[in-house]
Amino acid sequence: MNVFVIGIGLIGGSMVLDIKKHYPEATIYGIDTNEQHLEKAIELGVVDKKATFNDIENADIVIVSIPVDVQLHIIPKVLDAVNDNTLVLDVGSTKEDICLALKEHPKRRNYLATHPIAGTEFSGPTAAHNGLFEKKTNIICEVEKTAFKLQEKALEIFSKLGMRIRYMDPKSHDKHIAYMSHLSHISSFMLGKTVIEKEKNERDIFDMAGSGFASTVRLAKSSPAMWAPIFEQNKTNVIETLDEYINNLQQFKELMKQNDFTEIYNEMESTNHIKQILNGIK
Amino acid sequence: MNVFVIGIGLIGGSMVLDIKKHYPEATIYGIDTNEQHLEKAIELGVVDKKATFNDIENADIVIVSIPVDVQLHIIPKVLDAVNDNTLVLDVGSTKEDICLALKEHPKRRNYLATHPIAGTEFSGPTAAHNGLFEKKTNIICEVEKTAFKLQEKALEIFSKLGMRIRYMDPKSHDKHIAYMSHLSHISSFMLGKTVIEKEKNERDIFDMAGSGFASTVRLAKSSPAMWAPIFEQNKTNVIETLDEYINNLQQFKELMKQNDFTEIYNEMESTNHIKQILNGIK
Repeated sequence: MNVFVIGIGLIGGSMVLDIKKHYPEATIYGIDTNEQHLEKAIELGVVDKKATFNDIENADIVIVSIPVDVQLHIIPKVLDAVNDNTLVLDVGSTKEDICLALKEHPKRRNYLATHPIAGTEFSGPTAAHNGLFEKKTNIICEVEKTAFKLQEKALEIFSKLGMRIRYMDPKSHDKHIAYMSHLSHISSFMLGKTVIEKEKNERDIFDMAGSGFASTVRLAKSSPAMWAPIFEQNKTNVIETLDEYINNLQQFKELMKQNDFTEIYNEMESTNHIKQILNGIK
Repeated sequence: MNVFVIGIGLIGGSMVLDIKKHYPEATIYGIDTNEQHLEKAIELGVVDKKATFNDIENADIVIVSIPVDVQLHIIPKVLDAVNDNTLVLDVGSTKEDICLALKEHPKRRNYLATHPIAGTEFSGPTAAHNGLFEKKTNIICEVEKTAFKLQEKALEIFSKLGMRIRYMDPKSHDKHIAYMSHLSHISSFMLGKTVIEKEKNERDIFDMAGSGFASTVRLAKSSPAMWAPIFEQNKTNVIETLDEYINNLQQFKELMKQNDFTEIYNEMESTNHIKQILNGIK
C-alpha cells in the first residue's frame, strides 16, 4: 500500500505513523515544500521516502494536511494526478470551501472530506506522535459523494486509528466548529496578547502564572500559518461567534460595574454545567 | 504541633495533607460550616479531628482557606482567639482588602498574607491531594508586618511543600493577578456561556469539542462561591483587564471584517511568544 502524505506536520505526520503501525507493509511517501521538515520526518521515521507530484499516480491513499487556503489549489491537482482507485482525503478545519471547490471535479468520487478533531498546540513533524486519534471524533462531510469502496477503505483506517465517525454537511460543520474550536483559539490568542501587552515591562511577573492561565492560553501557541487561513475561510461564522462572545464579556463587565455579584454568581453557576458536557474529553 | 484549617477544600485540604506528611507528629483540626465536607475530610484522612472556634487558642498554626469575602470577617476573630505564638495565614486570591482589614489589629504580627499560585478547577475536600504546591509560586505580602519567628515557621513549611517564594505589596499583587489569573477565569466562563447558549438545542454537537476547547474552557468549572467574591474585591483591576481584553477582541474582529489576514497572522505570531513565557508552567 502506497500512502502519500502532503504536508508532514502534527496531523498528517501522526496519521501516517499510526497507519504504518497498523499496516506494516505500507510505504509512506512524503511531500512537503519545507525541505527541512521532510528531512526531519525521514530521520524520525515518520515517512519512508521523499516523493514529488509526479509519483502520485502510484498512490493508494493521499492524505493532504496543509493550510486550508493552500489545499484549495493543491487538492484539485492531486485529483488530476491520481488513478481511479486512489483515496484522497484532507484533514482541514474548514469544509465548506473545499467541498465547493471540488464540486465539479471529474474525480470528486476519489475525495473524502474529513476533519479529525485532534491535535495539540504544537506543529511540524517533531509534533507527530502515535495514538493522537485514539477515541477522537472524525467528522466526515458529503460522504455520499465519495465512491463506496473508497469510503470503506477510509473507514477501515479510521477504525484502526480508534476514531469515531460523525457525518455532517459542510455548512453545519463550519458553523458549529466556529463555536467549538475556532472561537477558543481567538479567545486564547487575545488573552495572551492582553497579558503580554500589559506585563511586558514587568520583571518576574510571569512567576504569577499558574496552571489555570497556562491552560486557558495554551492555544495561543498554535501555528499562525495554519490558523489565519482557517479564520479567513470561516470568516462569517467566526465573526458571529466573536460578536456573541464580546457581548457576553461586556454584559459580565456591566454586572461588575453595577455590583450585581449575585447575578455574576448565577452566570458562573449555570456555566458550570460545562462539566457534564466535557465529560469524556481529555 | 496543632494545625487548624478553616475551610477544608482544595487549597486548605491539600496544604494540611502535605503538612501531615512532613510533620507526622502534627494533629490536624478541621473547622468548616459545611458539616458534610468536615465528615468527608475526616473519612479521607485530610483532617484528624473536628474543632470549633473555642479550640483555636491551642493552635500553633491556623490556615484560613475560605472565600475572600468571608475571610474579611473571620480572620479578625481568629486573631482575637489565638495565642501570641500562633501563625495565622490565609491563601486567598486577593490581598489588598484583607491586609487593609487587619492593618490595625492588635495581633497583626501573628498574620501572614499568602497566595499560593496553585489549584485545579475542582473544589471541596475530595479535590485535596498531596504535592499540589510542589514547584509552585507562593506570593507573600507585607512580610515585614509579620513577627520574624512566625515568618520563619511559615517559610520552613512552604519550603518543605516545595514552594518558591515571591514578595510583593498587596496593591501590586491584586493588579497583576487580575491579568495572570482573574481574567483567564472570566474569559473561560464566557467562552463556556457563549457555546452553551448557542448549542443548547443541538444534539451531539459537543462531540465536536476537542482537547483545545476543553483546555480553554477548563476554568469554567471553577466554584462560583469562591470566584464571585474575588471579582468583587478586585473589581477595579478586573474591569481594567476586561476593557483591554474586549478591546483586543474587537480589534481582531475588525481586522477580519477588513480581510486583513496578514495583520491577523502577525498578531498571532507575536503572541506565540507566550511559549517562552510559559516555559516551566504545567
